[in-house]
Amino acid sequence: MSAVPSQRGALRVVGVGPGDPELMTLKAARILAVADVVAFFAKQGRPGNARRIVEGALNPAAEQLRLEYPFTTEVALDDPRYLAEMGDFYEDCAALLSERLARGCEVALLSEGDPFFYGSSMYLFDRLARDYANEVVPGVTGMSGCWAQAKLPICHGDDVLCILPGTLEEAALTERLQGADAAVIMKVGRNLPKIRRALEAAGLLARAVFVERGTMGDERIAPLTQLGDEAASYFSLVLVPGRQRAR
Amino acid sequence: MSAVPSQRGALRVVGVGPGDPELMTLKAARILAVADVVAFFAKQGRPGNARRIVEGALNPAAEQLRLEYPFTTEVALDDPRYLAEMGDFYEDCAALLSERLARGCEVALLSEGDPFFYGSSMYLFDRLARDYANEVVPGVTGMSGCWAQAKLPICHGDDVLCILPGTLEEAALTERLQGADAAVIMKVGRNLPKIRRALEAAGLLARAVFVERGTMGDERIAPLTQLGDEAASYFSLVLVPGRQRAR
Repeated sequence: MSAVPSQRGALRVVGVGPGDPELMTLKAARILAVADVVAFFAKQGRPGNARRIVEGALNPAAEQLRLEYPFTTEVALDDPRYLAEMGDFYEDCAALLSERLARGCEVALLSEGDPFFYGSSMYLFDRLARDYANEVVPGVTGMSGCWAQAKLPICHGDDVLCILPGTLEEAALTERLQGADAAVIMKVGRNLPKIRRALEAAGLLARAVFVERGTMGDERIAPLTQLGDEAASYFSLVLVPGRQRAR
Repeated sequence: MSAVPSQRGALRVVGVGPGDPELMTLKAARILAVADVVAFFAKQGRPGNARRIVEGALNPAAEQLRLEYPFTTEVALDDPRYLAEMGDFYEDCAALLSERLARGCEVALLSEGDPFFYGSSMYLFDRLARDYANEVVPGVTGMSGCWAQAKLPICHGDDVLCILPGTLEEAALTERLQGADAAVIMKVGRNLPKIRRALEAAGLLARAVFVERGTMGDERIAPLTQLGDEAASYFSLVLVPGRQRAR
């Protein structure tokens, strides 16, 4: 029922959900079945997670456009090299999409989870939205997939929910956790020991649950107190459910 | 790919998305097409928003079980009457579902948006999950639907995103807003003047966007500075996007 540009030649930024292909929306499936071009981000040497999710949902005749990140390992967000190289990368990607949009192609740009919730696709949207008809299709976020699989209601009534990147410094992480009723800590990876210390300092460690690869078929769910400090993957997060009301 | 209980007679708590029926997941559509019982919450005199979303997606032979909230007008969450009466109401609802689950029915309990993100269905899940096979199907949240329709990327890089109920007191609202890079204020309704003052005090008013009935077909989107203090509906929220990186 949303306002869909009716002419051909539109950019559709499509959230494909948290991992389970069945958690795509009907709208995403409809768009992918007829797109002329399917563009997706991928790390070097990897198939691309969003691309993996939509396997079987694509127009077989579609051009598949792989957009490969310039870094093989994580570069800190505050490294000046990061900002410059990522900016160049997004410019190059936008040029590739622009060329196809100008020809009248229907271009679907895939995004894991929800496109505008920490997604890279927003950087291409920002560069192209002024010049081409466009649409943003929201998706189920990774965090929703994780708390559903963990069967952990995350927030209730008038809870404040704070979504925090695990990359924050320990003091900032602790302070933000102290002010929240419920929390989700994203980007766990190698930050797990720091996150654990911050949760302990904020008095929330007992309620914290670790979820890795939620809805992806090989997920791992464990109370954080029962988990060692081994490195966690990129697709992991920590959930701190709020306090329940109206039981 | 998630662990689906295979026997019949399961409770499936199904997120049906933000309003547009096409923003249901493939999984929700599959479950609703075969459910024996479809249960949904509704306010007195209203059709029930989740029920409206799934019109056309239901098994025609399914029993439709309307669960009507005991209050016709909003009662404050901290009113003792609220906790007591809502507790009784959820007990009654759980008994209705339990009777059907015990007979081996497939019961789908609808939830607008995502079930475990401020949803009432979690209170029935809590009462029934121990006794019956169950599954939680995440959905696209109302806030994702709103920021997609507003074409407003909400958070980037290492932004902290705070989700705040508009029912908070003004001082608390202001303090939480000051500590956030990006924010979503839910439950706007009659709290709009207070929310506006808190945003102004936190220096965020210029970035705030009001969205009402996002993806529902009759949505209203406006910068908060261009909006009067008229009452907003229950299905409205205020978005404060984070600061952009890697442009």
